[in-house]
Amino acid sequence: MEAQYRKRRADLVTWMARNSIAVIMLEDAEGRRDPAMRYFSGHPSDAILFITVTGHAVLCPWDVNMAERLADVELIVPYSEFGRHPVEAVRTLTSRIGVPPKSRVEIPSGTPYPLFLQYVEALFEYDVLCREEGGASAEIARMRSIKGPDELEYLELACSITDGIIDEVERAVTKGSIRTELDAALFIERLAREAEGGERTGFETLAAGPKRSYCIHPFPAYTNYEFPGPGLSVLDFGVVVEGYTSDVTLTIASGELTAPQKRIVKLVERAYDAALGLYRPGVATRDASLAVDELFRAAKKTMPHALGHGIGLEPHEGPAIRNREDNGWVFEPGMVVTLEPGLYDPKHGGCRLENDVLITETGNRVLTHSRIIRI
Amino acid sequence: MEAQYRKRRADLVTWMARNSIAVIMLEDAEGRRDPAMRYFSGHPSDAILFITVTGHAVLCPWDVNMAERLADVELIVPYSEFGRHPVEAVRTLTSRIGVPPKSRVEIPSGTPYPLFLQYVEALFEYDVLCREEGGASAEIARMRSIKGPDELEYLELACSITDGIIDEVERAVTKGSIRTELDAALFIERLAREAEGGERTGFETLAAGPKRSYCIHPFPAYTNYEFPGPGLSVLDFGVVVEGYTSDVTLTIASGELTAPQKRIVKLVERAYDAALGLYRPGVATRDASLAVDELFRAAKKTMPHALGHGIGLEPHEGPAIRNREDNGWVFEPGMVVTLEPGLYDPKHGGCRLENDVLITETGNRVLTHSRIIRI
Repeated sequence: MEAQYRKRRADLVTWMARNSIAVIMLEDAEGRRDPAMRYFSGHPSDAILFITVTGHAVLCPWDVNMAERLADVELIVPYSEFGRHPVEAVRTLTSRIGVPPKSRVEIPSGTPYPLFLQYVEALFEYDVLCREEGGASAEIARMRSIKGPDELEYLELACSITDGIIDEVERAVTKGSIRTELDAALFIERLAREAEGGERTGFETLAAGPKRSYCIHPFPAYTNYEFPGPGLSVLDFGVVVEGYTSDVTLTIASGELTAPQKRIVKLVERAYDAALGLYRPGVATRDASLAVDELFRAAKKTMPHALGHGIGLEPHEGPAIRNREDNGWVFEPGMVVTLEPGLYDPKHGGCRLENDVLITETGNRVLTHSRIIRI
Repeated sequence: MEAQYRKRRADLVTWMARNSIAVIMLEDAEGRRDPAMRYFSGHPSDAILFITVTGHAVLCPWDVNMAERLADVELIVPYSEFGRHPVEAVRTLTSRIGVPPKSRVEIPSGTPYPLFLQYVEALFEYDVLCREEGGASAEIARMRSIKGPDELEYLELACSITDGIIDEVERAVTKGSIRTELDAALFIERLAREAEGGERTGFETLAAGPKRSYCIHPFPAYTNYEFPGPGLSVLDFGVVVEGYTSDVTLTIASGELTAPQKRIVKLVERAYDAALGLYRPGVATRDASLAVDELFRAAKKTMPHALGHGIGLEPHEGPAIRNREDNGWVFEPGMVVTLEPGLYDPKHGGCRLENDVLITETGNRVLTHSRIIRI
């Protein structure tokens, strides 16, 4: 495991050298979570991480006990040394590491503008960078979008546990032992954490019975309402292995569907099949998204969300798979992404079908087997 | 309920008029959650909200169906009209609302610097503000820190459900029906959602058996490990009513404790009692925090986290109750805050005792009854 963190840092250092960056600072804090922290150090949360172009990693964690157990870095400095103030920590550590004045120090692209001003003032000796395009955050997103062998192993295990849970859910709803959205969500939570290698669910499970399935993301995520009831019910969840999450959605079609419900289901299945053929290396992800938009438009329907996204340490990460004009992502081998067409009708309910897909050298391999379950 | 949103917007409009702000923009998005959206409109998530000094609220939601059901605003404009791009939405809507050129438009203080630059460019006709001190975000945090009658009702119900769950947990661990951290967390999740008025838990429940209780925030939050086992186990959870969450931590001391474990528990209880007397109007929250630091220092211990924080639509909100020099919060009647001293030892485990406290005109009222449970 530790070798992986060092290899990733070495890859980043190569990019830093090419771009004349002396230090990259990463921060994971409440309201500004950044799994890149874990990606480069093994430390999961609440810390500042410095990576220098000389190849050193310095971690400034909130919980030192946890860091000593989990972090693979050259140096750990307790956050409490700096009055728990990130700007003070960054100022002191940058000078302690011995970064030469006028060097380029890159801070996260998510840094709020008022905090950015504080960093610029505290690091007045340095050239502080904070940018999206061409910056460290974009490079890290690009690195993270192509999964390495160890990451693929975790994701494949997460997907295999997920498939097992889908089968268990099908059995349970068929025999009637799941009666509410709450039953469904806790059933999944327990299976995810009891599975060998399973860490937790990847995000709050969404369970929407027929009354709420018209919502893309029902709110609250699950309640004591009937699930599954007559009509369309939707279940969206993921399983985490070593931090890496799967993300699937299945629709349960219960009883005799109305004509509009049948049409929604059929269109979603058609969109899924059509898009899967476009999930291959070299295709712009935007083109896959536009193809589905076109298919739905011909049926006078609109999908109110993206067609998919990358998965990994975050349930949503690069590549984006959506129709926005500024989406420049192209499918590449090693990407693991979702395909999740969905249609939603306030009167008839919703249907979404989502699976996880590995882009291969020649096309793709579908890693999960979510489906429309008819009971 | 709707009257509340209008009253809050009216209060904000008064502040806007005094500060010559024409429009305040609020955003709730993945990675930048902002419950102020719900506070001012009733719409819970994934949207942009405009509040104008003329008293209008315009919501630009991702999920229009949800907005039509939940939002109390003058106008709903679908996000999809703007190619799902926030900057484009803000640019178009600001002009459509008819904001006069050169007016001051305030955007969230959490806006990342690169996005800030895009807003400034798109809103070149306006004076774009993005600030912490003296800005709209700080004013909204101040407003939200003092709970109104309806908010107190929700929090008191959340606290009362929480107390019921604490009692149930005590019964269950005493009779041995909770055997793992997973059992404890799912037991709480079910009770929270089945309770009359209970919406969900307020954050991922933390359940740490003796092997993991030395962590402030164990990672993963709960596992299949033994809970409670001999020694110190910690359980940290909250219950949500209408978006408002409680936040308590109880420690279960099981079997004969070692001398260091007894000492940790005793110190935490002493710190709790000492600090509670300082939870009253007019006291600087930093002073309460420093008093506990001093008490622990005399015992050669350090608490690695803050003494408390406000609770409400977020599990952590204003006021901060911590020792940082820049903490200027003072206890005021109507604040609902946590008191949560804790000590953590990698060898002997951890102990934290956390309750929710309403600051009253004359002192305080403790709303929850978490405790050290000895079994």
